[in-house]
Formats: sequence, structure tokens, C-alpha cells
Amino acid sequence: MSDPWQECMDHCVEVTKKAGRMIREALQKDITVMHKSSPVDLVTETDQKVERLIISSIKEKYPTHSFIGEESVAAGAPSVLTDSPTWIIDPIDGTTNFVHRFPFVSVSIGFTVKKEIEFGIVYSCIEDKMYTARKGKGAFCNGDPIKVSGQEDISQSLVLTEMGFRKNPEHFKTMLANLKTILTIPVHGIRSPGSAAVNMCLVACGSADAYYHMGIHCWDMAAGAAVVTEAGGVIMDISGAPFDLMSRRLIIASSRAIAERIAKEITEFHVGRDDTDGE
Amino acid sequence: MSDPWQECMDHCVEVTKKAGRMIREALQKDITVMHKSSPVDLVTETDQKVERLIISSIKEKYPTHSFIGEESVAAGAPSVLTDSPTWIIDPIDGTTNFVHRFPFVSVSIGFTVKKEIEFGIVYSCIEDKMYTARKGKGAFCNGDPIKVSGQEDISQSLVLTEMGFRKNPEHFKTMLANLKTILTIPVHGIRSPGSAAVNMCLVACGSADAYYHMGIHCWDMAAGAAVVTEAGGVIMDISGAPFDLMSRRLIIASSRAIAERIAKEITEFHVGRDDTDGE
Repeated sequence: MSDPWQECMDHCVEVTKKAGRMIREALQKDITVMHKSSPVDLVTETDQKVERLIISSIKEKYPTHSFIGEESVAAGAPSVLTDSPTWIIDPIDGTTNFVHRFPFVSVSIGFTVKKEIEFGIVYSCIEDKMYTARKGKGAFCNGDPIKVSGQEDISQSLVLTEMGFRKNPEHFKTMLANLKTILTIPVHGIRSPGSAAVNMCLVACGSADAYYHMGIHCWDMAAGAAVVTEAGGVIMDISGAPFDLMSRRLIIASSRAIAERIAKEITEFHVGRDDTDGE
Repeated sequence: MSDPWQECMDHCVEVTKKAGRMIREALQKDITVMHKSSPVDLVTETDQKVERLIISSIKEKYPTHSFIGEESVAAGAPSVLTDSPTWIIDPIDGTTNFVHRFPFVSVSIGFTVKKEIEFGIVYSCIEDKMYTARKGKGAFCNGDPIKVSGQEDISQSLVLTEMGFRKNPEHFKTMLANLKTILTIPVHGIRSPGSAAVNMCLVACGSADAYYHMGIHCWDMAAGAAVVTEAGGVIMDISGAPFDLMSRRLIIASSRAIAERIAKEITEFHVGRDDTDGE
């Protein structure tokens, strides 16, 4: 039997390219910024326009499929993962970067069936890097196979994370304490590029050795999870438990040794689940 | 009278391109890492090879000029700025990035006469972006003029800094406290790309609004200082005093308002000067 989802993936690549073009065009113009839940939670007209483009392009071809999109959820749509074929969409991953034209801005689309990730596409559209991964068939950047560094020694590693959580003083304090803990292991360094999906792809292609984050969403992780897994990386919950797409917590690494060491060093906190409303 | 230093600048661009090609070729091969003063202070054979290439190419044409190069200083050469025409060279700015193939790696060459910066060239060689600036003649990226964002409101700004100082517990503590202070202003976000010269160019072209750092060196700042100044940015010491190339401390910003606010918020510490041995 032929792969039932390959056609969806091919369609996804085309839609993602179109979305990337729309984002690059928007970067040439003035960007109007709006705020979501707080002064540091930004959204733009382009986020909303790109998500509408993506969903309508997919719905036309696959009318029975389900969708979880960042902007749709912000507008009140449910964020519950079911067994149905589901497209999990972040129209602009790295909205703050987009607003500032900081060079890591991506379109991220993951696709699940029976709650399993079947494929993921991350298009870093300023860099013009298209990352693709189909379950069991490897990960690619612009068509070339990619793999993680394979680094096993955390003291030789470059670690990615982001500095957020300013809404909750306790989380903020823990986030800073975790930075300190990781830096003093020591590691080679910490980098903060500002796009979760790009961070996952940087680990997938061996440019960094690990990435940890609490507070991200399923649309930030779904596509990148496919890319990093197919590139030979390890993915787990921040506690060291198996990865849970709806948990808002993530460690990925070039090896199990590094992922487990980060899980051991990091102090975790509860950020709520993406699907809490549906439980 | 024609510009006496334009010929030096033209030569510098050619040398920098050659150095960039050498770095890109090295990235295709295995990278042999050596350590300088600590496990997180990396130096590679390529740093040393590229610096030798740059200095010999310039010395051949300008035998009476002076040089301050990162690797020469590490090998014991003096690091004192004199009135003599002086080339200030970082062969690979972002050595840790280079070792990991993280995409911000640059060649940085600044040129001073009577201790004044006359021009600066930063070549971000994985991105293939050549930043050039001649005093009084504007800043360019791949030949196109660039300018800072002009942002005046720090709460709307994207701030760059790097997380280092693990050798000194007091500095490390202050570095983390400063991160917390800046994040809680609040700002849109903090990014850590890992190359001081690239950070300066990101502010120069408006992709970020500010960058602060204590502990960097004159070879990290000389070229970028020309680029950001010519792009309309503001440069000062971390204390708010005038910028001092040998002070190892820096704030740059898209506006005086943002630079002065960062100077006010940041707790400073003394990291020693680049020219201490010569004083």
C-alpha cells in the first residue's frame, strides 16, 4: 500500500512555501503590532492572515481534517488533540522576531493521525531553509539529509533556550535559576534565537546540541518534533518522562545522555496544558 | 585631497572575503578544538590560520602599520592602542558558534588612526553578509545602505546580550541579575546570537534595538562600532560615559534614550582593560 499521508505532506510543503512568501512580503512593509494576553505577547495582522491562508488551502483539499492553529485558538477555537487527522499550525513562529525583522522567523506545520505525528514542515523563511520530515523516512533541509551532532558530553554542548515567563514571578525566578544551573555545568554556551521551531531544527542539523523550554505550545513543537526525531535526536518531557505534545514542556537533544542530564538539572514548573479546556 | 584610508578599506574588504572563504571551507571539515584559558574559551586552528592570513596580507601592503589581533594577543603580543594606523582583528568572532556550526560566525576588522576608528568591516560568513562602514560615509550590508530602527521606547525593543562570566562568581551573579532587570522593564525580548560583531550589525540594520556586554574585547567591537555609528546608532560605555574601545564594556542602541536607560538599569562590574599591561 502506498503511503496515505505523503500526498498531505506534499501539499503541506506547497502551502508552507506560499505562507513563507506572504511573510517575506510583509517584512518589506510596515508591521502593525497588536497585543494578546500581555505587553510582551505580540500578534500581527500577518499572523492571522497567514493562518487563514494555510487553513483554507488545506480545508479545500481535506475538508474532514481537524486543525489546531495558534491564532484560531487565541480567537477561542478548541485546542484538543483527537484521533482525527489533525494539522497543527503556527503561521509565524517567532512573532517577536518577525516584528523586529530578526532573522529567525518560521512557518511550522505538524500533522498527526491517532495522536501520532506523521510529518512536520518548518520553513525558516528569512534564511530560506525548508526543513521536512516524514515519520520513518528521515529529516531534510532544502532536500539534503540532516542529522543531529551526536554529542554525548553536555560540557561540550551548545544549548538553546528562551527567556520568558515574565507574567509569573515564580516561573521567572525558576527560569533564571535554570539558566544559571545549565551555564555552570558548564556547557559551551547558551543561545536564544527566539523561534522554538527554528531552535528544534538547529538541534536537528547539528548546529546546537540541546534545547529545553517550558511554556511553549503544541503548534511550536509538532513540526519540529518530527524533524528532530527523524534527524536522530532525542525528545522528552522536561521531567524526563516521555514527550507529550500537549504538555507545553520539552527537552530535545543530540543524545539521550544530554537530554537526561538536562531533565535532571532543570527545576520544573507547571505551565498548564494546551488541552486543559477539553479535559 | 582624496581619502587617505579608502585604499586600506578596499584592501580590507578583499582580505575579509578571503578569510571568510577559508572559514567556510573549514566548516566543511572536522573542527579541531583547542582551549585557551578555560574550557569555555575555545580557539581553533582555523582562528590562528585565518589571523595569520589576514595579518600577512595587510603587512605585505602596509609594512609600517600596527596590529592588534585576538590570537596574537593570546600568544603574548601587546594590546595597546597607539596613534599609529592600527588594524584590530578578530579572525573568527563567535568561535563557539564556529565550533558548533551555529550560523553566526564573522570576521571582524576595524582600523584606527590616532586612536579614532576610521572604518570597520564585519563579514558574517555563513549568512554571506558583508557589513562595511567608513567614517562619515554611512554603513552598508552587501552594498545596500543600512540604518538602525530608530526605536526610542525600550519597552518596544528587542535587546541582545550574551551569557558568560562563569569564571568569576560575582560577575556571573551580576550578569544574571542584569538579565532579570532588563527583562522586567519589560522589553519585547532578549536574544543571544553568540557573536559580538554580528550583534552590533543586527542593531545597525534595525533587526534589534540594543546590545549590551561587559567582558568583550577591542577586536570584538572595533569594526562593529564603525558600522553601528554610521548606521545612526548610539554607542557608549556601560556606565553611560563615552565609549572607550579598550574598556571591554559596551552599550549600543537605536537611540540615545534606550542606550541611557540600559546604562541606568545595568549593574556594572570591572572586567579589566585590554591595554592594562601597557599602562
